[in-house]
Amino acid sequence: MDALRGNAVIGQSGGPTAVINQSLVGVMEAFGSSGAAGKLLGSVHGTRGIVDEQFVDLATIDSGRLDNLAATPSAALGSSRDKPDAEYCQNILEVFKRNDVHTFFLIGGNDSADSARIVDEMAAASGYDLQTFHIPKTVDNDLRTTDHCPGYGSAARFVATAFMGDDRDNRSLPGVKIDIVMGRNAGWLTAASVLGRQAGFGPHLVYVPEIAFSVSQFLSDIEASFDEYGRCLIAVSEGIEDENGISIAQVLAEQLGKQVERDGHGNVQLSGSGMLGDFLADLVRKELPGGISSRVRSDTFGYLQRSFAGYISEVDATEARGAGRKAVALASSGAPSGSVAIRRLSNDPYASEFFRAELADVAKGTKELPRNYINAAGNDISDAFSDYALPLVGELPVIESII
Amino acid sequence: MDALRGNAVIGQSGGPTAVINQSLVGVMEAFGSSGAAGKLLGSVHGTRGIVDEQFVDLATIDSGRLDNLAATPSAALGSSRDKPDAEYCQNILEVFKRNDVHTFFLIGGNDSADSARIVDEMAAASGYDLQTFHIPKTVDNDLRTTDHCPGYGSAARFVATAFMGDDRDNRSLPGVKIDIVMGRNAGWLTAASVLGRQAGFGPHLVYVPEIAFSVSQFLSDIEASFDEYGRCLIAVSEGIEDENGISIAQVLAEQLGKQVERDGHGNVQLSGSGMLGDFLADLVRKELPGGISSRVRSDTFGYLQRSFAGYISEVDATEARGAGRKAVALASSGAPSGSVAIRRLSNDPYASEFFRAELADVAKGTKELPRNYINAAGNDISDAFSDYALPLVGELPVIESII
Repeated sequence: MDALRGNAVIGQSGGPTAVINQSLVGVMEAFGSSGAAGKLLGSVHGTRGIVDEQFVDLATIDSGRLDNLAATPSAALGSSRDKPDAEYCQNILEVFKRNDVHTFFLIGGNDSADSARIVDEMAAASGYDLQTFHIPKTVDNDLRTTDHCPGYGSAARFVATAFMGDDRDNRSLPGVKIDIVMGRNAGWLTAASVLGRQAGFGPHLVYVPEIAFSVSQFLSDIEASFDEYGRCLIAVSEGIEDENGISIAQVLAEQLGKQVERDGHGNVQLSGSGMLGDFLADLVRKELPGGISSRVRSDTFGYLQRSFAGYISEVDATEARGAGRKAVALASSGAPSGSVAIRRLSNDPYASEFFRAELADVAKGTKELPRNYINAAGNDISDAFSDYALPLVGELPVIESII
Repeated sequence: MDALRGNAVIGQSGGPTAVINQSLVGVMEAFGSSGAAGKLLGSVHGTRGIVDEQFVDLATIDSGRLDNLAATPSAALGSSRDKPDAEYCQNILEVFKRNDVHTFFLIGGNDSADSARIVDEMAAASGYDLQTFHIPKTVDNDLRTTDHCPGYGSAARFVATAFMGDDRDNRSLPGVKIDIVMGRNAGWLTAASVLGRQAGFGPHLVYVPEIAFSVSQFLSDIEASFDEYGRCLIAVSEGIEDENGISIAQVLAEQLGKQVERDGHGNVQLSGSGMLGDFLADLVRKELPGGISSRVRSDTFGYLQRSFAGYISEVDATEARGAGRKAVALASSGAPSGSVAIRRLSNDPYASEFFRAELADVAKGTKELPRNYINAAGNDISDAFSDYALPLVGELPVIESII
């Protein structure tokens, strides 16, 4: 390994996860032992901190604090939802030049990979020596190329466990219960609702954005579930869409005369409101007969899914840390700019390795839940998904039942 | 200890908790080793199962399953929100007579203590030999006589940890974040939001039902917090009330033309909807200037607070188990009917003991958060509360910060 030239910058971007600081600490540790003579500068609030030259010299953080820092949920350097345009990226490059920065690490989702790509291409075009490495993180698990994303396993563990408990709650006081799960336009996190399900228990219905949402089908599905179980626990993605591919939450917000909030990347705000769950619950109350509609509740799991401390997946934490280290290793070895990706080697026992993916491949678009992970009727999740996801969440609680 | 006469019935009632089955298993274990010749009958769905004679012979449950059963959240026998009237209680008594039941255990809150009291007095009046023991459980922590309630510690642990993570999430992407916490008309569970707070971090504001909620004060509190921290994380009880003691959630539901749902005890439904959080978030968006209102989110923690498996407080689990055992010990010793209560013996190290309280004392009314557990301004929680609550939640995650 060659020593890195000059200084390096690291930033965290987009919605945080429970293990995003594992990747930060992974970079800090590996940078510290890489023999690099320069500084590792933490950019405060993502790319915004670069433009504003708000840096923290990460060598000043006591190494005794690193394990606790890694276990702390949500971006310790602060995050940002800025979408860098050409001028913004030009400013980033100017700051890099002024601060002798030749290595750029950015932890984030596909929008961040795209920002990293733009800065990297701009540097190349201007003949400036810059290596750029994107380190994946997202609870949505929707990045291309990688088998799965750091951050997903812990969020999926939270969701799976939440449904195990909520199913027993619904079993003890029967009725219709609707739980809204994060994940934007992909059903990966909502699918995790089934990971702790025992035969004959809930969730009884699962709706993901990959299948067009039909109100009439939703209502008849609930009636059928009630006939069979006398109750119905339902997992619904925050990003479910109508047959035209328009998010139901967006349609609702517009109907209610609410301002539809978008981030710099044009993404509509889906989380941080109970609107979708309340709408679906009201629908059931209004449209279904008394036996079914007498007890209807909805919960929106919200930001707990990405920020709950103390209940993370060990596999996820280890991989997130490793992804940070891998980024430094790639940089030190003089590898071309890229995104750290995970390849699954075996499922039992679970094993994985990292590889370098192209920034452009990760930046463009997102990855949907494959059709074979969804049942034929489009209202439940298949065993093939569980085979994929179970190794990522760690051991789930063992629960028992009497009735 | 004398052996118990005849058969015994046990039921679970009201909203479940994460450790309510610890108490069930405590009763099962102690009954099994009490030398009682009769059966322990589990009533399916609380008092409803008694009237319907829907019983499970709990001796048929394999003892190897008991530890996992105890760790399973939510009433394993099913629960009920029925309010037994005189006829209903008469029916219970008839079933007891027909099935040679002379001991009645009911796990629940104050409404359940009241049901237990009525049945017990009715038996006494008719000269039927019945011992009745109420075993406390509620995440609301609002029962009289006892120092605290089994179920509270685990819910408080969940809430404290949730706020630790959500605070870092809000720190990384600053804005106004409102989290609605359970607890009905008492602020105990909402107060737990501060238990993992570090100096200078959130929650920055806490609103409990014990202090009349003022919209103008709420808005100016947020402005002051924003001035100081550039962000604001807020804990709000689901049961906050206006100056006339009317629940804000109820007022809202009526304004929105929604049916206000009440259980048999007249309690208004507060949980299972994101309405209150969304209302407060809309208020901030509408009334406060752009710098503050540009990013406003609300989450309603919902049923996860009482049903999340795998993240319980060990102290709480142990006490819930012990409360079940104590009820059998009281019955076996021929003690008068009563409610199992907890007395705190010391705080450091934490130690407690059980004692028998009168059913009537626990049945009547609920216990509010004392005024000295709330700050003078009525928008935060005092250190005195933390001294009370910290021993009940177990060790919280240790988190670190850079910015």
